This record gives sequence, structure tokens and C-alpha cells, in this order.
Amino acid sequence: MLFQVEMDVQIPLGLAPEVVEQLKKTERERAQELQKTGEWRHLWRIAGRYANVSIFDVASNEALHDILSTLPLFPFMRVSVTPLCRHPSSVRSDDS
Amino acid sequence: MLFQVEMDVQIPLGLAPEVVEQLKKTERERAQELQKTGEWRHLWRIAGRYANVSIFDVASNEALHDILSTLPLFPFMRVSVTPLCRHPSSVRSDDS
Amino acid sequence: MLFQVEMDVQIPLGLAPEVVEQLKKTERERAQELQKTGEWRHLWRIAGRYANVSIFDVASNEALHDILSTLPLFPFMRVSVTPLCRHPSSVRSDDS
Amino acid sequence: MLFQVEMDVQIPLGLAPEVVEQLKKTERERAQELQKTGEWRHLWRIAGRYANVSIFDVASNEALHDILSTLPLFPFMRVSVTPLCRHPSSVRSDDS
Amino acid sequence: MLFQVEMDVQIPLGLAPEVVEQLKKTERERAQELQKTGEWRHLWRIAGRYANVSIFDVASNEALHDILSTLPLFPFMRVSVTPLCRHPSSVRSDDS
Amino acid sequence: MLFQVEMDVQIPLGLAPEVVEQLKKTERERAQELQKTGEWRHLWRIAGRYANVSIFDVASNEALHDILSTLPLFPFMRVSVTPLCRHPSSVRSDDS
Amino acid sequence: MLFQVEMDVQIPLGLAPEVVEQLKKTERERAQELQKTGEWRHLWRIAGRYANVSIFDVASNEALHDILSTLPLFPFMRVSVTPLCRHPSSVRSDDS
Amino acid sequence: MLFQVEMDVQIPLGLAPEVVEQLKKTERERAQELQKTGEWRHLWRIAGRYANVSIFDVASNEALHDILSTLPLFPFMRVSVTPLCRHPSSVRSDDS
Amino acid sequence: MLFQVEMDVQIPLGLAPEVVEQLKKTERERAQELQKTGEWRHLWRIAGRYANVSIFDVASNEALHDILSTLPLFPFMRVSVTPLCRHPSSVRSDDS
Amino acid sequence: MLFQVEMDVQIPLGLAPEVVEQLKKTERERAQELQKTGEWRHLWRIAGRYANVSIFDVASNEALHDILSTLPLFPFMRVSVTPLCRHPSSVRSDDS
Repeated sequence: MLFQVEMDVQIPLGLAPEVVEQLKKTERERAQELQKTGEWRHLWRIAGRYANVSIFDVASNEALHDILSTLPLFPFMRVSVTPLCRHPSSVRSDDS
Repeated sequence: MLFQVEMDVQIPLGLAPEVVEQLKKTERERAQELQKTGEWRHLWRIAGRYANVSIFDVASNEALHDILSTLPLFPFMRVSVTPLCRHPSSVRSDDS
Repeated sequence: MLFQVEMDVQIPLGLAPEVVEQLKKTERERAQELQKTGEWRHLWRIAGRYANVSIFDVASNEALHDILSTLPLFPFMRVSVTPLCRHPSSVRSDDS
Repeated sequence: MLFQVEMDVQIPLGLAPEVVEQLKKTERERAQELQKTGEWRHLWRIAGRYANVSIFDVASNEALHDILSTLPLFPFMRVSVTPLCRHPSSVRSDDS
Repeated sequence: MLFQVEMDVQIPLGLAPEVVEQLKKTERERAQELQKTGEWRHLWRIAGRYANVSIFDVASNEALHDILSTLPLFPFMRVSVTPLCRHPSSVRSDDS
Repeated sequence: MLFQVEMDVQIPLGLAPEVVEQLKKTERERAQELQKTGEWRHLWRIAGRYANVSIFDVASNEALHDILSTLPLFPFMRVSVTPLCRHPSSVRSDDS
Repeated sequence: MLFQVEMDVQIPLGLAPEVVEQLKKTERERAQELQKTGEWRHLWRIAGRYANVSIFDVASNEALHDILSTLPLFPFMRVSVTPLCRHPSSVRSDDS
Repeated sequence: MLFQVEMDVQIPLGLAPEVVEQLKKTERERAQELQKTGEWRHLWRIAGRYANVSIFDVASNEALHDILSTLPLFPFMRVSVTPLCRHPSSVRSDDS
Repeated sequence: MLFQVEMDVQIPLGLAPEVVEQLKKTERERAQELQKTGEWRHLWRIAGRYANVSIFDVASNEALHDILSTLPLFPFMRVSVTPLCRHPSSVRSDDS
Repeated sequence: MLFQVEMDVQIPLGLAPEVVEQLKKTERERAQELQKTGEWRHLWRIAGRYANVSIFDVASNEALHDILSTLPLFPFMRVSVTPLCRHPSSVRSDDS
């Protein structure tokens, strides 16, 4: 089941640089792990912003929440979730 | 080059049913044509709304506008366009 | 899987009264049918508005969209969908 | 009498971790207590956000405010309240 | 139990003048009736707009909805409802 | 002359507890003083929020500003002011 | 007493041209009449929009509403009203 | 003096096609005339929308308003105007 | 040339009181200086808010920006600028 | 390919003055460098705000993001990006 998720990241000024670097590192590793399992199907950067548009392929709302809420940068994200489904005009067999 | 496009369709009440059917038919044909050329890379329905989230792969802003502005349902759409680019954490080679 | 759906209904002035009555009648019948299957789990009126807050229990985003988009009043609705999941503090066994 | 309440929690960075843990613990205990009395009838997590949608069954606006304003996390919440009432199409006898 | 209700009236152009006059007449009569029963406790005009701020004193959300949804001008209103309760600093005995 | 005023209070985390308590105390005293003079005619709590809806009866905009801007909690308030006047359908003689 | 009023005019398409011309004519005459009495103290056009920013000098909210609500174009206006008062840094003696 | 102007065009359904064509023709001629005089310095299409971003170089607010308010499509436009000035980091000599 | 400018001031909690007092003092002096030169033509307080509505009479956008951006409180202001011009119905000779 | 970019800068209070000066200096140098390469085609100050409207001429979304995300002040900016394309009524040969 597909969800579009937009994540807008705002890291507050007061956080120590090394803590920020570590957060970003673990975030990248986690994102790549989830892409390899196929759950994080698409991950694109929004041009000009520290934000991304992603497409998740998960079994349920629970699964989506478990993934998003345990992302290292989650506490610094504003997240919007849009449930998607197959479009009647879609010609792709692998896009739902 | 990738763009996320959200199209929210509102067909006014006064339009004759047959005109609406014809518009929807040509819209579907055009959308499928563009998907086969690869320009309309992803087309998903937003659950619960007469709207879609799409990912376009086009050569330029002009190309994107030419496609969107000539869609049969364009006069009845509210469109938002978000330019995307490859995310540094993306593991996919075919997603930019 | 649970979704909160808010439906705000605005029936345009120009629609013939008998058409409106028929729409409302079939809408009510459909809503009651879906409640009996358990898909439309909760249906509440928002006090002071021609709008409702509902909780749907469906198998997927597709199922949700199929239900909502075929409601008789769908063309006159503004719909917002919020995917829900079990809350870690919930004590109920039947609420997810 | 039913109210839909959405609670969006934002815990500021500067709060000591142990204070946060204690707040969350007492919040969970209080939420479970209120669910057992039936006042906090439904509590769902919004997928992807540190927020919940809840349905409260209380005797009055006062009762609702007393509950919400004394929640341990109240100072860190943005709350919206929507008064609900029985929907004419509802088939449930226990949903008002 | 008190509710603040803001009603913003927009009568569409196409309505026959005599119909509009009749609606306004019955609206005024109904509003005065409800004020005499004490349910419509305060009714003020918002300066510069065809809108009002009102305070209703009703037994429940249902009662509020029954009143508002049967107002003659209801189909032409945008309504917002805010549940109120006694303020801890209020010195009035008759204001809750 | 009547004004509706909505006051939304957000006390920042960093303020010392005793300072906050003193602010709230003097705010309560001042509010009660103004209610006794009749200037602060109505003061209601918005259910679920640290905010109030009030009706002020003052001689001029200046008088309203002098009252609001000297409230102890004013620096921590977001205030919206709506000028009211007597509604043509009001039956009350004491409500303008 | 001063009020800032912004009037955004949207004349619907279906109105007969001669009716529109007559409305504009009487609107202009009324506006000039009120400027001569001093009630409509300032009237400026917002560059690029069919809208104005005005400053009214009136005795009360009622007076303001009576003026605005009887303007010929009032049914086609979105109006916002901001109560003003003398600024402590103002050097003008005639600006309150 | 430079202004950024964004024009969002919404031509209502009820307008006769030939009238619309004529409006678009005269709009194009007028826009090209103003570009040749240098007043309409830049005119870009917003990709995906029937809207443009323009930069006007005019002597005053009045001049800007006279141009915009006499554009054939003005009655069908939502216009937003942002006054610009030379940026301290600009290296161009011809951009103010 | 006239501009309406709305300035909403939010002084952060952490600023030393004496610094704030000094800022306010120099702001007041600067505002009075500009009023005497006629550039700051009108300065009104918005009732109930630490904000003002002002009318500036300046030669250009640059002049306006130079004034606003060098105000002592500028770093703590949210500013919105609306370019004005003479209204065709204005009877005043001194209001453009 | 052209993009309109609006950058709204908010430098937090806690940053050391010399750090801020250094950021501004390197920002100015970088902006001038990019203007000389032609990528940053236009840079205008928004009158009354610490914000700019810019037009970028870049080869792709990626190029735009690389430029914006590496600007020294990027962490303190709210950025909005609007993809532009040649307008059918544009007479300029050098504006796309």
C-alpha cells in the first residue's frame, strides 16, 4: 500500500554539531536500509529546501508510523502523509 | 528531470454529462500515452479525493508546462508543482 | 486499518430539489449499508455544520477510495483523510 | 456528549530527558485511567505524527476542559476541539 | 452549556428577492423566539460584515446542531462553533 | 461599545515558575477588577485551550487598547479583536 | 474613533452591465458624500487590485456598520475591519 | 521602480468562447505593447498554471495600477503585487 | 507615493530589559523624526496588539526599504507592505 | 531554465554578531560569484523585508538545489521555488 510522505526538517540552532552529524549519519543509513527492503520505495529531495517527498510501500498505517516515528530526525520533522492508491489511468503494473 | 505535480480536479455542475465523459476519456488516453513515453513516470490517485499525485520526468519546465496545460481537464484543475532532485540518501539508480 | 475522514458537503443552489432528496436518500442507505458491514465504523455529525467526522475500517487505501468516491454526495464533498493507527496508550482491544 | 479532539504534541528541545520521560509516563497513566472511566472513548495515533485523534464522551464543555487542561503534556500541545452529535444516518446505538 | 458561534452569511446572487426577504423574515422571527427561550443568549452583529457572533446556552451538542441546522439561512452560512466553559477568573454567577 | 476579543496565551518554557505564578495572580486580579467596573463584560474559557473569548464594553478603541496592552500576560498573548454592534434581530435591551 | 477598513470588491459575471454601472455611480457618490462629512477620512486604491484601504472616523462600531452595510457595492465586498487608536509615538494632533 | 506581480487567471465557464478568444488576443497585444515600452520588463509563465510572474518597471504605484487594472483579463485575475528594490549584493547595473 | 505598512512587533524573551528600553526609545525618536519630514505620514496603533498600521509617503521602493530596514526594532518585526495610489472616488487633494 | 526563488531570512537572536557578519559577507560574495556566472540572473530586495526575489537560470533542479542548499545563510532561510518557462506573449529573446 502506497503513501506519499513529505518531511520538512528543521534542526534547532542549539544542537551540538557532532550530535547533528551523528543524527544525519544514522538517518542516511536507516533510509538506505528501508529502501533496500522496498518499504521506502522513492526518496526525492525538494529542490531548494531541507525537505523530501517520499513514497512508502507498507502493509498498514501502523507499519508506516513505526518507520517514520523511529527515524533519527523524526523529532525535528514536520511530516504530512497522503494515502495513495492505484489510479484508473495508470499503465504501470508495479506502481501500487 | 523530476517534478512532483498534484492535480485537484473540480468539474463545475453546469457541464453537459456527455462533454464530461468525453473529457475524461481523452484525459485518460493522453495520460496513458505520456506514461508510455516515460514523461508521466508515476500517477497515483489520492485516496478519498478526485485528485492525483504524479511524478513527471521531463527535459525542462517548458516541457512540463506544455504537457500539463494541454491536458483535457486542465481548465478544471488546481495544479501545484514541486521541483525534485536526487536525494543524497537515495540508493536507486533510476530515480532521478 | 483505520482512517479518519472528514466530509464537508456543499450542495450547489442550482440542483433540483427532487434530485437533492434522491441523492440524500441513496447516501443514507449506502452509509447504513457500509456501517452494517463494519467498514464505516463511526459516523458523527459535526455540530453546526453540514459535515461529518467518520472512522473507516478498511483493508487498504484502495478500499477506502472505492467507498468514498462512489458515495452519491461525493461530487459535492470536500474530503480530508487522516490515516490512524493504534495508540500505544490505548487500552481498548477493539479500536485498531 | 461527544467531542473530537486533535492533540499535536511538540516537546521543546531544552527539557531534561528524565523530565520528558516522567511526563510521558504520567500522561500514559492518566490517558488509560480516563479510558477506563469511559470519558476518553477513543484514542488513535495519527500515522507519521506525534499527534492523536481522540473522541471524548463527557457531560459538558467544563468536564472536557478539566480533563484536557490537566493532562501532563497539555503545556506542549496544540489542541483543536470539534463538538460532535449523533448523525441521522448512524445505525449504531452506542455512538452518541 | 455555552458555545460561541460565528455565522457568516453569503446569499448567492441567483436567489429571487422575495425568497430572500422571506428567508430573512423567518430567520429574524426564529432568532427572536430562541432568544426568548434563553437558548440564543447573545446575538451581536460583526461591524462591517453580514455576519454575527452569538453565544448559545444549550443542553448538548445535539441541541445546538438542531437549532443551527434548522435556521432558515443555514444553507447560506459558514458556521464555526467554539465550546466555552466558565473561566476561573470570571466573577459573574450568570455567565456559564 | 462592544468588542469580542480572543486571547491565546503561550507562556515560554524559560520563564521562572514563581514569575509565572505572580503573573497569573495579578492577571486574575486585574481581570476581576475590570469585570466589576463592567468593562470586561464577559470572560469565557475556550474548552481545551489556554485561551479565552471575552466581550469588552468600552468607550473607545483607545480604552480597549489601554486595558488589553496593560494586562500582565499581554506579552505572552496572541490577541484578535472583532468590533461588534447591536444586531437588528436582538431582543435584549442590555446587549449593546 | 478610527478604523482601518479593507474592501475587496468582486462583482459576479452574471450582473447586467447597466446595473453594474449604476451601482458604481451611486457607490462613488456615497463615498464622496461620506468623505465630505469627514467620516470616510482616507480612501486609497490598492495598486493592482479592485480593492481599497480606507480610514473611517466614526463615533461607534454601530456608525461604522451602518455606513459600510449600506454601501451600494456592499453585497459584492469582502470587508476586514481593524480598530485603530492613537500611537504613543505619533506627533500629529489630528490623527486620532 | 520595480514591482513583482503575480497574475493568476481564472476565466469562468459561462463566458462565450469567441469572447474569451478576443480577450486573450487583446491581452497578448497589450502585453507586447507594454514590453516594448519597457514597462513590462519581464513576463514568465508559471509552469503548470494559467498564471504568470512579471516584473514591471514603472514610475509610480499609480502607473502600475493604471496598467494592471486596464488589462483585458484583469476582471478574471487574482493579482498580488510585491514592491522590489535594488539588492545590496546585486552586481547588475540594469536591474533596478 | 503612498504605501500602507503593517508592523507586528515580537520582542523575544531573552533580550535584556535595558536593551529593550533603549531600542524602544530610539525607535520612538526615529519615528517622530520621519513624521516631521513627512515620510511617515500616518502612524496608528492597532487596538489590542503590539502592532501598527502606517502610511508612508516616499519617493520610491528603495526609500521605503531604507527607512523600514533601519528602524531599531526592524529585526523584531513582521512587516507587510501594500502599495497604494489615489482612489478615483477620493475627494481629497492631499491624499496621494 | 528559469526558476523564481523567494528567500526569507530569519537569523536567530542567539548567534554571535561576528558569526552573523561573516555569514553575510560570504553570502554576498557567493551571490555575486553566481551572478557573474549568469546562474543567479536577477536578485531583488523585497521592500520592507529581510527577503529577496531572485530568478535563477540553471540547467536542472539539481543545479538549483546545489546552489541554494550551499548558500551560507541557507540554514536561516525559508525558501519557495516556482518553476518558470517562456510566456507565449513574451517579446524578449533573452528571457527564457
